Amino acid sequence: MTAEIITIGDEILIGQIIDSNSAWMAQQLNFIGIKVKQITSVSDSETHIIEALNAAIQRADIILMTGGLGPTNDDLTKPTLCKYFNTGLRFDETAYRDIEALFKQRGREVTPLNRMQAEVPENCKTIYNKNGTAPGMWFEEKGKIFISLPGVPFEMKSMMTESVLPWLAGKFNLPPVIHRTILTQGIGESILADKIKEWENALPADLRLAYLPSVGMVRLRLSAVGEKKKTSAEINSQIEKVLPLIDKYVFGFDDDTLQSRVGVELKKRNATLVATESCTGGYVAHLITSVPGSSAYFKGGIVSYSNEMKVDVLHVSADTLKKHGAVSEETVMEMAENAKRIFKTDYAVATSGIAGPDGGTQEKPVGTVWIAVATPDKIINRKLQLGNKRLHIIEVASQSVLHLLLKDLV
Amino acid sequence: MTAEIITIGDEILIGQIIDSNSAWMAQQLNFIGIKVKQITSVSDSETHIIEALNAAIQRADIILMTGGLGPTNDDLTKPTLCKYFNTGLRFDETAYRDIEALFKQRGREVTPLNRMQAEVPENCKTIYNKNGTAPGMWFEEKGKIFISLPGVPFEMKSMMTESVLPWLAGKFNLPPVIHRTILTQGIGESILADKIKEWENALPADLRLAYLPSVGMVRLRLSAVGEKKKTSAEINSQIEKVLPLIDKYVFGFDDDTLQSRVGVELKKRNATLVATESCTGGYVAHLITSVPGSSAYFKGGIVSYSNEMKVDVLHVSADTLKKHGAVSEETVMEMAENAKRIFKTDYAVATSGIAGPDGGTQEKPVGTVWIAVATPDKIINRKLQLGNKRLHIIEVASQSVLHLLLKDLV
Repeated sequence: MTAEIITIGDEILIGQIIDSNSAWMAQQLNFIGIKVKQITSVSDSETHIIEALNAAIQRADIILMTGGLGPTNDDLTKPTLCKYFNTGLRFDETAYRDIEALFKQRGREVTPLNRMQAEVPENCKTIYNKNGTAPGMWFEEKGKIFISLPGVPFEMKSMMTESVLPWLAGKFNLPPVIHRTILTQGIGESILADKIKEWENALPADLRLAYLPSVGMVRLRLSAVGEKKKTSAEINSQIEKVLPLIDKYVFGFDDDTLQSRVGVELKKRNATLVATESCTGGYVAHLITSVPGSSAYFKGGIVSYSNEMKVDVLHVSADTLKKHGAVSEETVMEMAENAKRIFKTDYAVATSGIAGPDGGTQEKPVGTVWIAVATPDKIINRKLQLGNKRLHIIEVASQSVLHLLLKDLV
Repeated sequence: MTAEIITIGDEILIGQIIDSNSAWMAQQLNFIGIKVKQITSVSDSETHIIEALNAAIQRADIILMTGGLGPTNDDLTKPTLCKYFNTGLRFDETAYRDIEALFKQRGREVTPLNRMQAEVPENCKTIYNKNGTAPGMWFEEKGKIFISLPGVPFEMKSMMTESVLPWLAGKFNLPPVIHRTILTQGIGESILADKIKEWENALPADLRLAYLPSVGMVRLRLSAVGEKKKTSAEINSQIEKVLPLIDKYVFGFDDDTLQSRVGVELKKRNATLVATESCTGGYVAHLITSVPGSSAYFKGGIVSYSNEMKVDVLHVSADTLKKHGAVSEETVMEMAENAKRIFKTDYAVATSGIAGPDGGTQEKPVGTVWIAVATPDKIINRKLQLGNKRLHIIEVASQSVLHLLLKDLV
């Protein structure tokens, strides 16, 4: 069973909005075993919409559209669908009551323009919209299913969840698609590929492997179609085989993040953490505190961007700073060790480096970063060399110190 | 002149990543006078890529592809283009030197897989990539222009800016499109539109206005096509008219950011800053330190995520915390005032709030945030109510406190 998503709206084609609807829809369709063949964004133009529909029915069984259902003249999806299916409009009383209720809630009268939104093509099943004025439409025509939904994300999402997805799952008895993603940090795509080459070449034909790189990370996704229990078992047995080859780099699975994994492990131990940062400038603390509930283990952070603050708050010795410099093994070790002691935590992380573009020297070029982790019984550290892009250095150094901490925790 | 964007990658079709590249590309193409007709996302499949190319050349003069250029087996764009243009590969020495340089910077040897990335189709002009291992490709075939770029956003963006956009503008002698963008913070799109309605309706027909909302901000972009000097003057005279209507919300123009503007103003005064954060968890410090050269004015930050740290480091009185709570006008004022005194800076910013999802009460629901700014001679503060999405609260609270500081500085 395959689908195509067509997003309708000039605002997408001039880059005014990023289309996040189709990624969400694709994910949801995948979960119930429907494969998305193509995502197409077209303009608010009758010709273009019809051209896209004609192309989509060559490729897919289900065509989902979003957008173009507003009350104004530039919203063309409904009249275009009437033309495409050669049908007229009917007035949907229930849809109208939804619109009335919404206006009442806002203390307003329904305008004639909004009243017209309760009109739907005669040949469609209405998909009711509790959160907005545009009802959705479900058509079974030309041996295909056509679904039209509003483009407002929260309206579309609730209509998908409450109507479209259950209707689709009920109509077709679908084999699910199973995905499992391994998350790695600190290794490039090509070196990773090299390490698992033999395993990859020996994968059974029904399993697909994808490399998904992003800043500082590579995700490895294994996918297969089939009965859930059997397919999951097959994927899991392959994961067990590959993990020992790359365990130094693996930090989690699926929706995990470094910061969420660190949180889980600290909570297990009832342990606390403090972050001291120089070159990462607060980004480590930001990652940690982006996790809901992080106040349970995160006591706080010191962004010691000046030497003064390193000495006054973190008690790094002026002698160390003078002898070895702020970006040095010695300084970062003192930052971690002292922070753990001063703030009475179980763990501390520390970063110090040169994020550039200025401040590099021959001996310590831009991108040189020292990271350290103080644990209840030791301090560990690493030196990194992270290229010369400021934000890239900040992000990768932050990930690296969280990963170094996580490796000690698991 | 029209273009079609084709994004290649299974990860888009299963919804694992949101395609933000094509919105950015569409915007840039628009700037130089090229209209995007369609955006199409296809799978890593030879048949599907070729099908999309054949459809695109029916609609557009320029076909831009992103993705599928990695070194691994699932990256099919390059072999597919060779097949489509019926050509072989040549080894590009310059591309190889880029790859070598990148590996050298990271202290690594080039792997055979990465060496192969320097191979490009014989009929293409290479688009060099200073930030990654995959070169891009420019083809002039079948009376059209085909451009293939990597999917990694920062690699793609710099190749667009440095090569593709100037090449396209040069080739087609496109009339320049002049843009000027006004940046606002702290006002919603519809209220803003209401405030400038009369000005907007009186705009000359050759000027186009776009509202570009993002988290906490709305950018207003004025564009016109035509001779640079005259068009710029016309745009600037309109900007002078609109500014007085919205000056409370305007923080800069074009590529400015709140943090870059704050930096410029602090440097002018030779003044220093410290940031103390509770609910924003390091994000304010991160924004400030994302600006190159920020160490000239930013002494550092305290992420006082626990009451203990507020008392021990920032000397907030235990009495204040007990009587008014951590999220209160009194606490945030003490945070700012004490930080300025303790760290001997000219300015201090402070945030304290409930980022959720837990911790809200009837009286102080999730999204309640207090912000404060200590200046050389006073303290100012604001209470914000920012909804219930954790990351949204963190981002908007951080922007708001920087904006409050900036308004005092200018």
